[in-house]
Amino acid sequence: MDKIRAAITGIEAFLPEYRLTNEELSRMVDTSDEWIMQRIGIKERRIMTGKDKATSDMGAEAVKKLLKKTGTNPDDVDFLICATITPDMPFPATANIIAHKVGIHNAWSFDINAACSGFIFALITASQFVESGRYKKVVVVGADMMSAITNYKDRTTSPLFGDGASAVLLEPSPDEDGIIDHIHHVDGLGRLHLHMKAGGSLRPASHETVDNDEHFIYQEGQTVFKFAVSKMADVAVEMMERHGITAENLAWLVPHQANMRIIDATARRMGIDPKQVMINIRKYGNTTAATIPLCLYDYENVLKKGDNIILAAFGAGFTWGSVYLKWAYDGNSVAG
Amino acid sequence: MDKIRAAITGIEAFLPEYRLTNEELSRMVDTSDEWIMQRIGIKERRIMTGKDKATSDMGAEAVKKLLKKTGTNPDDVDFLICATITPDMPFPATANIIAHKVGIHNAWSFDINAACSGFIFALITASQFVESGRYKKVVVVGADMMSAITNYKDRTTSPLFGDGASAVLLEPSPDEDGIIDHIHHVDGLGRLHLHMKAGGSLRPASHETVDNDEHFIYQEGQTVFKFAVSKMADVAVEMMERHGITAENLAWLVPHQANMRIIDATARRMGIDPKQVMINIRKYGNTTAATIPLCLYDYENVLKKGDNIILAAFGAGFTWGSVYLKWAYDGNSVAG
Repeated sequence: MDKIRAAITGIEAFLPEYRLTNEELSRMVDTSDEWIMQRIGIKERRIMTGKDKATSDMGAEAVKKLLKKTGTNPDDVDFLICATITPDMPFPATANIIAHKVGIHNAWSFDINAACSGFIFALITASQFVESGRYKKVVVVGADMMSAITNYKDRTTSPLFGDGASAVLLEPSPDEDGIIDHIHHVDGLGRLHLHMKAGGSLRPASHETVDNDEHFIYQEGQTVFKFAVSKMADVAVEMMERHGITAENLAWLVPHQANMRIIDATARRMGIDPKQVMINIRKYGNTTAATIPLCLYDYENVLKKGDNIILAAFGAGFTWGSVYLKWAYDGNSVAG
Repeated sequence: MDKIRAAITGIEAFLPEYRLTNEELSRMVDTSDEWIMQRIGIKERRIMTGKDKATSDMGAEAVKKLLKKTGTNPDDVDFLICATITPDMPFPATANIIAHKVGIHNAWSFDINAACSGFIFALITASQFVESGRYKKVVVVGADMMSAITNYKDRTTSPLFGDGASAVLLEPSPDEDGIIDHIHHVDGLGRLHLHMKAGGSLRPASHETVDNDEHFIYQEGQTVFKFAVSKMADVAVEMMERHGITAENLAWLVPHQANMRIIDATARRMGIDPKQVMINIRKYGNTTAATIPLCLYDYENVLKKGDNIILAAFGAGFTWGSVYLKWAYDGNSVAG
């Protein structure tokens, strides 16, 4: 059987310069570095600044660097997906704007709306186009400018989120390495606990929705925390069992970076060592669709061909899932 | 070679009761039945009414009817995509809400943002999951509540749009019928001519954006018309040439329903008879992601197994594309 497998063959990222520290945040809302570090584990987050800047500007920078790093001609890209819940505009898709900004002219593209599971949902979607034999070069972008929908008067949500973008190139694998399996779930009932109330067909924007702060993230923290802890661990453990993965042969868990305590709980349920977990929440916060590729990017130089890796996420929807892949190249051999 | 092909095996739709006629519209803005019929070809459009109603309510009704009509157990659905630019909320995805409302519990899902090409982009995306052998039952919904983003003070755009939803079931084809090919394109430069200015990360909702009517469709009609006429015909003709399809062996062109003159121009370029073109714009207007499946639904009883069908769309992005499929069942044998 010669089934085609899709592999990540390159990764890049863009992070805005501006750092919003806990110190600065504690001058905006009633919070403190100690409280945030204990409860969430975030020291600072990057914020996109500048006039007329939006999610596509971050995504385009990441893709531009990705094409350069992988020596990919923009004309050879067949297809591009952008996972985001903070598109430049409600329509058209930010993916199209990114493609235009980087000179990708022969690909079609669209946005996927799946919140914090956006990257793993987009990755698996993109991989189908490679597995089916349709396409050879597919770009998956995870990009969110969370500062655009974060209420900086709300002490419960404002410490959590940051801005960032990351992009990966998917190509057919020449061997057995690449994306092997996924376990993805949604539960629409979760919309009650984590959503953005206005700006859609249910509550179009109005003076009332603006006055009521309905264009910001609404989150019932305790409920979401409980679901996240159990669901993210469930799909990670299920993936280990399904493929005979143990603490010994797992190289890395790459968890969505929403809260250090959720990450720790997931690692404990999996029975793995904290050293096997990629973590960068401390410096970027929750960048929604960008967290998982930003981790892979930060750890790229220690990744080795054949590494067993599990990606796991939980987010608004509710959406959650895990991906099992074997890393396809030695990260330390990559120029950059 | 035993490549799996994905086939549409059922179709359903939901249309709101309320009919907004040209007569009523001409009491709201400076227009007339004669002007609208000559320029666009729309008599009336359906409008979703009622408190707290949104796109998911239409989508859920269509999917509920689809599962019943096809005898599909909700538990057997593996995956669901909703194409929409009028999600209930900016997040979570309307697809998740639809799945929850109809009792689909074992599928994962997300929204695709690709405007008027949303259905054909979603259809091809969904078909990859069938072609790759991953999934057996996939639901694709096209649903838009355009009344939520239409400015009923604007005489140029208010006659164009309507509300509606339609859903198809995709399954592996037992034979050669099903979805054969696609030619999809985007050009992000088109964002300048057709977009919704505010409500994204570029211009978050504010009193100013509400006052400036920036939460409605913005369209430069003449430019979009010109692109639509040439691009939609280009990909339809290219598809005919690629597969040796002629006016004689083509059963149906199913064009996106934005404007009767664009549809006529596409048919002329393809050299086909107006009788080979599915048209229902007169009664529904442009329902964005729902137009193409609404056509297939309206014409289902005349569809025959093996019919050569070309779907073609053009929309915001710009996005455009065509799909070639062989219809997989006799429509007149379907109970309903």
